[in-house]
Amino acid sequence: MTGTASHVRHRVYQTLENPSRTDRASWAIEIGLILLIFASVTAVALETVPDLFARYRVEFRRFDLFVTLAFSVEYVARVWAAPEARPDEPAWQARLRYMRSPMAVIDLVAILPFYLTLLMPLDFQLLRVLRLLRIYKLTRYSPALSVLMAVIREEAATLLAAFSILTILLIFAAAGAYMVEHEAQPDAFGSVPAAMWWSMVTLTTVGYGDVTPITPLGRVFGGAITILGVGMAALPAGIIASGLADHLHRRRDLLREEFRCALEDGQIDLGEGRKIEKLRRDLGISREIAHSIHQDVRRKQVQRSQCTCPQCGYEFQHIGDEE
Amino acid sequence: MTGTASHVRHRVYQTLENPSRTDRASWAIEIGLILLIFASVTAVALETVPDLFARYRVEFRRFDLFVTLAFSVEYVARVWAAPEARPDEPAWQARLRYMRSPMAVIDLVAILPFYLTLLMPLDFQLLRVLRLLRIYKLTRYSPALSVLMAVIREEAATLLAAFSILTILLIFAAAGAYMVEHEAQPDAFGSVPAAMWWSMVTLTTVGYGDVTPITPLGRVFGGAITILGVGMAALPAGIIASGLADHLHRRRDLLREEFRCALEDGQIDLGEGRKIEKLRRDLGISREIAHSIHQDVRRKQVQRSQCTCPQCGYEFQHIGDEE
Amino acid sequence: MTGTASHVRHRVYQTLENPSRTDRASWAIEIGLILLIFASVTAVALETVPDLFARYRVEFRRFDLFVTLAFSVEYVARVWAAPEARPDEPAWQARLRYMRSPMAVIDLVAILPFYLTLLMPLDFQLLRVLRLLRIYKLTRYSPALSVLMAVIREEAATLLAAFSILTILLIFAAAGAYMVEHEAQPDAFGSVPAAMWWSMVTLTTVGYGDVTPITPLGRVFGGAITILGVGMAALPAGIIASGLADHLHRRRDLLREEFRCALEDGQIDLGEGRKIEKLRRDLGISREIAHSIHQDVRRKQVQRSQCTCPQCGYEFQHIGDEE
Amino acid sequence: MTGTASHVRHRVYQTLENPSRTDRASWAIEIGLILLIFASVTAVALETVPDLFARYRVEFRRFDLFVTLAFSVEYVARVWAAPEARPDEPAWQARLRYMRSPMAVIDLVAILPFYLTLLMPLDFQLLRVLRLLRIYKLTRYSPALSVLMAVIREEAATLLAAFSILTILLIFAAAGAYMVEHEAQPDAFGSVPAAMWWSMVTLTTVGYGDVTPITPLGRVFGGAITILGVGMAALPAGIIASGLADHLHRRRDLLREEFRCALEDGQIDLGEGRKIEKLRRDLGISREIAHSIHQDVRRKQVQRSQCTCPQCGYEFQHIGDEE
Repeated sequence: MTGTASHVRHRVYQTLENPSRTDRASWAIEIGLILLIFASVTAVALETVPDLFARYRVEFRRFDLFVTLAFSVEYVARVWAAPEARPDEPAWQARLRYMRSPMAVIDLVAILPFYLTLLMPLDFQLLRVLRLLRIYKLTRYSPALSVLMAVIREEAATLLAAFSILTILLIFAAAGAYMVEHEAQPDAFGSVPAAMWWSMVTLTTVGYGDVTPITPLGRVFGGAITILGVGMAALPAGIIASGLADHLHRRRDLLREEFRCALEDGQIDLGEGRKIEKLRRDLGISREIAHSIHQDVRRKQVQRSQCTCPQCGYEFQHIGDEE
Repeated sequence: MTGTASHVRHRVYQTLENPSRTDRASWAIEIGLILLIFASVTAVALETVPDLFARYRVEFRRFDLFVTLAFSVEYVARVWAAPEARPDEPAWQARLRYMRSPMAVIDLVAILPFYLTLLMPLDFQLLRVLRLLRIYKLTRYSPALSVLMAVIREEAATLLAAFSILTILLIFAAAGAYMVEHEAQPDAFGSVPAAMWWSMVTLTTVGYGDVTPITPLGRVFGGAITILGVGMAALPAGIIASGLADHLHRRRDLLREEFRCALEDGQIDLGEGRKIEKLRRDLGISREIAHSIHQDVRRKQVQRSQCTCPQCGYEFQHIGDEE
Repeated sequence: MTGTASHVRHRVYQTLENPSRTDRASWAIEIGLILLIFASVTAVALETVPDLFARYRVEFRRFDLFVTLAFSVEYVARVWAAPEARPDEPAWQARLRYMRSPMAVIDLVAILPFYLTLLMPLDFQLLRVLRLLRIYKLTRYSPALSVLMAVIREEAATLLAAFSILTILLIFAAAGAYMVEHEAQPDAFGSVPAAMWWSMVTLTTVGYGDVTPITPLGRVFGGAITILGVGMAALPAGIIASGLADHLHRRRDLLREEFRCALEDGQIDLGEGRKIEKLRRDLGISREIAHSIHQDVRRKQVQRSQCTCPQCGYEFQHIGDEE
Repeated sequence: MTGTASHVRHRVYQTLENPSRTDRASWAIEIGLILLIFASVTAVALETVPDLFARYRVEFRRFDLFVTLAFSVEYVARVWAAPEARPDEPAWQARLRYMRSPMAVIDLVAILPFYLTLLMPLDFQLLRVLRLLRIYKLTRYSPALSVLMAVIREEAATLLAAFSILTILLIFAAAGAYMVEHEAQPDAFGSVPAAMWWSMVTLTTVGYGDVTPITPLGRVFGGAITILGVGMAALPAGIIASGLADHLHRRRDLLREEFRCALEDGQIDLGEGRKIEKLRRDLGISREIAHSIHQDVRRKQVQRSQCTCPQCGYEFQHIGDEE
């Protein structure tokens, strides 16, 4: 590869994958791509309004073409620049590795529907929905979103268990309502599956009110189910709260560890500072929290040095202040 | 007992009670049983749809027969293989102990309704509901579900207290709404018990809307109750969140303790590793969390060895970093 | 006071205020009082049903008389036995102190309405509601309820702040809905106070559906308010979760401290055990949690003794394992 | 500046910015201002009721004039007294700094609309809403409110991420409901934007019930969305719970640190006590929590002194008990 190409590839990589606040161009491209994602999803939604589609059929088509081209260029550029992330691997291997990453797969899914319609006539309705998946491209730009996604993934087993408790309650609520109400309201509570609509709407505390028990016994039973519904809604809230607290705790411990290593010699030099700043942004920890962790580590370092025995002068290395 | 029978019993025990990922047969049986539970519960629900029941009466009957037989075989096999878990007890005693365990009772309840109908003519409606209890057989297969069940059991007293606060508020909301609205709406708010339907639907934030206050004073009072409802819904969420965090903390401490003992000599050998892995799965802790606990314990062990005083050489065993 | 009277008073005190599981009589009286509270509140609610009141007027009156007498006897007995709690004070002073305690005030409020009606003709409607306050007598029997009440009291300032945020949002939602919808629906959104009914029902996610925005702009605005409503509902849940976790943590620290003191000499003797058991029940901590605290303290005590230097034999008292 | 003016300015500053419980005048002014804020906002809301506005037009106008004058005097007094907070800065600089603070900006916004209408004829409707912003003046008087505001600000990124997950789900729910229901209900589900009203009302668990799916497939899909709605509502609750716990933890650590410094010499003298009390109120920590922190720090100080080695007599300063 020539030097110029190499330089351009490095520039493309820095712009797309490692944007900094000081670099105007990369910042503009990032904002542009985010706006394009929103505009594209809005357009897909508006296409479904019959009046608008009839009037602006050509404009919708053109805008979709433009968006697909822009995202295609973005995808190709990212794949081409991928070797910059792993200079010690052969270029094709680094690119293949990048193409298998979740973000790259999402990028591909965002443009693939268009190219598939060129190759063969497909069901237009389904492709429309697939284009809505473009909104997932946003996850790249929000560390907080990736924190939430990580928590949901980590707590998936517990959330699934909460969901299975909900399922059990749903079936029993439906069976009970069926037994109590199916004579008074044969339409809404005529069978257990029919009664499940009511039990779902009630246990989730949505409460449309299109179907409600009307017999006295049905209302007593229904009241008990509404109360269970409050308990059910509490389960995922509790799981997310406990999981998020635990996850953030672990993330902050990683940063704390980094501060501790950096402060071993009593101060943070420029290289250490930059490394910590990068870690902070990758972990999605706010500047304020990072500062309070820094203060905390520094305070404990001081206490550690107080521990040194003044009599013999030996380095009495005692670290007893970890949380 | 002959050697062959003993060998078969051991194989049955391993397959049903201690399935491992590497053993194809036990894995297939586990999946098969889980699918059978779902299919059976779905069938019981569909039986209540009048049209379906009229058309497929025979098929429903046959499928129920098949499911009952399969679960009966499973139950008998589990009881028969129970002595494997406690080799030092007489076989009949181990079996009796197993039959009294919660899981075995659930298994029995899942098949008993069928045999009871053979012995005597019973109310069919109620037995149908009892067959829905089969879904509880699922708890055997999900450690996360047993975590949630344990938390709900541990926090039962506090949840009951939240429920009693809710009861107090329900009564006052109903009494207040009765006083304010019973003249304008004698049907819906004609007595305190009648007004409780509205107060239950409102305090749980379900809000069907079939009964709402219509007088100005009733709306001011109703608005205050909706706000209390938000507070009420917060209580169980807070209890579950706090209880779950505490419970998981204690579970992780057990695993942490195991890691600490195993790492006393600086490394985890094969036997220790297998023991930790079993504990991890029993506690329902994810591989990722276990890894982070391992890292944490290792880091603190290193700090402990730094504590050794270089002057006298004595093993200055100080563990000051426990959380 | 004669010896017999003194003995009787001690027995009454033990039965009413300090019931133990082993004492049958005190247990029966406790259960009886709890049932009486429930029966009394149910009767007050049923009295409001016109049909029932017309038919059973005399029975309601008689039952209320009986309940009031029973609670009066209970109140007098408790006041009479109060000096047992503080043997070093004059009897009248101990009784006065008891009568000013929150539980005694609630007990008085539960019987006072009846005696007030004997003295003067009062508004019957209001007295009916006052009798419902009897349900507060239940708080005496549930430590978990007193935990929840303490948390709500401790977090009162923060809950009030959440409530004031809700108020601010309510006013803005009502003002916005008024501006957008008052032309299309002059009845429901004709003024800011009128629009507050909709904004209250929406921001608390109750959602009756009796009043909803119908203009496109109103629906966009209404949708934004429903999303804010989810956030609003999150505030009290978060406050309760965080407050409860903190409160339980502090309660457990008190028990932990008690265990630590008791285990100073390496074992818990009978007196220490009884003291800990009493504290555990007063704090409303479950047996299981107490056991895990005990294990934890014991484990750390062992580590402390490892800390003792074997060279010089001095008591190197280092406690470095507190959380 | 003369001595008298200086004295008056100091008095004004103490009264408005640093009110203490012992100073009657400052306490009365604080209560008066709070009541005026509430009265003013209530008046603005009542003005929108057509009947009331027609009848009391003059009174509303006069009251608004009075409120604006009172708040103007308050604003001018605060700006004039601002240099008291920073005696080492030139007076104009201190005033400019104060005028740029968030509280001062809110105060200005509360009075500005009135003066703008004097200068030029403006849209009355919008100014009415701007006057409702006066309620934000309340934040000055509630440390708990500022805690909540700080938590919401700190967790803004995560809350925004939860909001973007909600947006993604909203779009998919609307697209799915559009595909399933647009033939059965062309009015309510005729396009993706139209279906968003239903998906917003459902995912937030508000559930008006004005639009509900009616086809069997639509109800299955709708049921799945209600369950997702429960999960969605859990996200902000979890974020607030975890963020609030973390924030309060950090606030309490600041107070703990203050206690620790004050207790270095074994006791808290008058000056230290006043400083701690001020910090406690600024941080919005309740007296009860502060007391338990005090106890905790004291207990650990005692343990530290136990650490002193009795052999050599050196001050073996070891602090190993921090949480």
